[in-house]
Amino acid sequence: MATITPPKDPESDPRVKAVFDDIRATRGTDFINNVWRYLAFDPGLLEQTWAEVKAVMAAPTALEPKVKEMIYAAVSIANSCEYCTHSHLAAARAKGMTPAEQADFFRVVASAGKTNHLLNGLRIPVDDAFLMDKE
Amino acid sequence: MATITPPKDPESDPRVKAVFDDIRATRGTDFINNVWRYLAFDPGLLEQTWAEVKAVMAAPTALEPKVKEMIYAAVSIANSCEYCTHSHLAAARAKGMTPAEQADFFRVVASAGKTNHLLNGLRIPVDDAFLMDKE
Amino acid sequence: MATITPPKDPESDPRVKAVFDDIRATRGTDFINNVWRYLAFDPGLLEQTWAEVKAVMAAPTALEPKVKEMIYAAVSIANSCEYCTHSHLAAARAKGMTPAEQADFFRVVASAGKTNHLLNGLRIPVDDAFLMDKE
Amino acid sequence: MATITPPKDPESDPRVKAVFDDIRATRGTDFINNVWRYLAFDPGLLEQTWAEVKAVMAAPTALEPKVKEMIYAAVSIANSCEYCTHSHLAAARAKGMTPAEQADFFRVVASAGKTNHLLNGLRIPVDDAFLMDKE
Amino acid sequence: MATITPPKDPESDPRVKAVFDDIRATRGTDFINNVWRYLAFDPGLLEQTWAEVKAVMAAPTALEPKVKEMIYAAVSIANSCEYCTHSHLAAARAKGMTPAEQADFFRVVASAGKTNHLLNGLRIPVDDAFLMDKE
Amino acid sequence: MATITPPKDPESDPRVKAVFDDIRATRGTDFINNVWRYLAFDPGLLEQTWAEVKAVMAAPTALEPKVKEMIYAAVSIANSCEYCTHSHLAAARAKGMTPAEQADFFRVVASAGKTNHLLNGLRIPVDDAFLMDKE
Repeated sequence: MATITPPKDPESDPRVKAVFDDIRATRGTDFINNVWRYLAFDPGLLEQTWAEVKAVMAAPTALEPKVKEMIYAAVSIANSCEYCTHSHLAAARAKGMTPAEQADFFRVVASAGKTNHLLNGLRIPVDDAFLMDKE
Repeated sequence: MATITPPKDPESDPRVKAVFDDIRATRGTDFINNVWRYLAFDPGLLEQTWAEVKAVMAAPTALEPKVKEMIYAAVSIANSCEYCTHSHLAAARAKGMTPAEQADFFRVVASAGKTNHLLNGLRIPVDDAFLMDKE
Repeated sequence: MATITPPKDPESDPRVKAVFDDIRATRGTDFINNVWRYLAFDPGLLEQTWAEVKAVMAAPTALEPKVKEMIYAAVSIANSCEYCTHSHLAAARAKGMTPAEQADFFRVVASAGKTNHLLNGLRIPVDDAFLMDKE
Repeated sequence: MATITPPKDPESDPRVKAVFDDIRATRGTDFINNVWRYLAFDPGLLEQTWAEVKAVMAAPTALEPKVKEMIYAAVSIANSCEYCTHSHLAAARAKGMTPAEQADFFRVVASAGKTNHLLNGLRIPVDDAFLMDKE
Repeated sequence: MATITPPKDPESDPRVKAVFDDIRATRGTDFINNVWRYLAFDPGLLEQTWAEVKAVMAAPTALEPKVKEMIYAAVSIANSCEYCTHSHLAAARAKGMTPAEQADFFRVVASAGKTNHLLNGLRIPVDDAFLMDKE
Repeated sequence: MATITPPKDPESDPRVKAVFDDIRATRGTDFINNVWRYLAFDPGLLEQTWAEVKAVMAAPTALEPKVKEMIYAAVSIANSCEYCTHSHLAAARAKGMTPAEQADFFRVVASAGKTNHLLNGLRIPVDDAFLMDKE
């Protein structure tokens, strides 16, 4: 399926093992999903990607974790990223998204897709009231 | 700017006036933004679009209003819909999104854009653990 | 606005003049819109682009001209191409698209945008009945 | 494959059965494709989605059914929605799209994709003549 | 998988055979990948597509072949075209892209995806200094 | 134009000044383009974004700087990011992209957009020969 070859025994590389250990500790699970196993083909890219995802998604920030995962999944759906859609909806569920919230999420994403196409077709000028950098 | 011509006096049409009145009542403001003024070119399309936006975004549902606006804005950014990005970020602010939450929102959207491109390039197989319809 | 500099006097180049003459003859109008004036920065790219657009859109083919322009505009809206959205909706109008058809067009494009996002989120397996290359 | 779990016996829910019965009656076939079987996970979302698709695509409107399916498929291709591309091209064929028209459709969609990228790269200003809301 | 049916014995059509022979000669290999086998469903579309790909990608032009394949793959990733992502990364490797260059390519594509989303969200005005057609 | 308000005197914040100084030193110019002036609304986001762009685009890596800017611009065009398209084509020119190379770049990007749409429409199975992780 992939455009790169994942290493057969990724944790034999100590840089990869350190990242996998941190993923397991941060998430409190032994499960390492495929994106990390494949990214191990380039330990530097693995380290940077995990460091960013950890800082943005796992560290406490202004938005609650469940909400951040739903925003992440919304972008992934619009970009037709199959892997990211699956992994971030799974993460949202793990972080407390209820079935009713997931159904609501799909309604919002679908309506956004609809009006995005309507507005990209109508090409209506943006209201001055929305601009935050007007003089 | 637009691909259609908005009516000069939209509220002279009673169907348009009814929608505008409902927008003002629902939002508690006299401000009618451009999307509704332009959509008045087709009263049926105006009615349907407002009915859907009202039901999904203004009615109480499982997710809180601010979060729904952020999800809507996230999709709009990924679809490069300039009008929708402006209007739904303005709506999120009106519904309580703080500056810290908006900065956090941009971080999440940016990281999603990054890993969406990484995964759409690597084409890694989806983990079985993520599939909700497996037998 | 642009990333390239259009020539000040494009028709002083005989290759450009030949393309512009053919555009005027094919369309039965003296109006040369900006895309051709700017593409004149590279006469080869101008020639190839016009030859393709002429063969696909101006020559008689299985679909009627108005329908082809609407399909073209639909793709352009989904790709958020502002110039193409404007130029191909204008072309559709010039080739007979009525206001009622344009409103209908926007309804279809908007609903497609909606269900595209719903399905890209739900990731439902394609029915075998739809596959044209199954054994 | 999917991010939600479809009900095992969807028609045991009377709201789902009512939608499925209407799909069968509207289309004149017993075949219920996967999108409806999966959407049955949320009867409200199923009802709303079918009501919209029926009103826009199955009811008589200004554009003929075959043309609407092709416009729908064009948007779906640009959004890389695999399911929608398959289902709406199948619907277009069922509503009379000939092989020659389908080949023509692909030519138009491909050329639109080409010039969308060219114009999104060149960033050429839109001609005043195209703007429908200029003073 | 596909929306069209490829011919069972494509080279029995002399127009298809001529294209396949030219692909083999141009590339110096007997391998004909699926896109050409499937496009044989419409010999005219096959001929035009191969003629364009050959002229743009196989003929000597200003950019080196490896770089052109990476640019092609970058567009394909952003458009979530699975087939094109695979085929053009394979072509880039065949034309000399090293593993270090491929890892670098993924870093650039991922960072572009990130800042594209950041800028499509922030909607910052383009600097005058970047505009090539200003008076 | 923007969804955030840039600070009036960004360099009064020492964190912002440090980033601007590093941009000037890295690029050898006093010109600070708008993206950095606006990102100063959040010094942390400014620092992280510049650190990533500097590491990926300004530091010596496997690919030459000009090529990296073209790959970056290609992604930006496909994502319809107007600011990024302008800024990275300007950067490519500053790093040595010739007019002939820029014209060639547009040809490749346009052909990629074309076949991306063709293949996303045809949904042809990926050849086994392209898969790098097959057993």
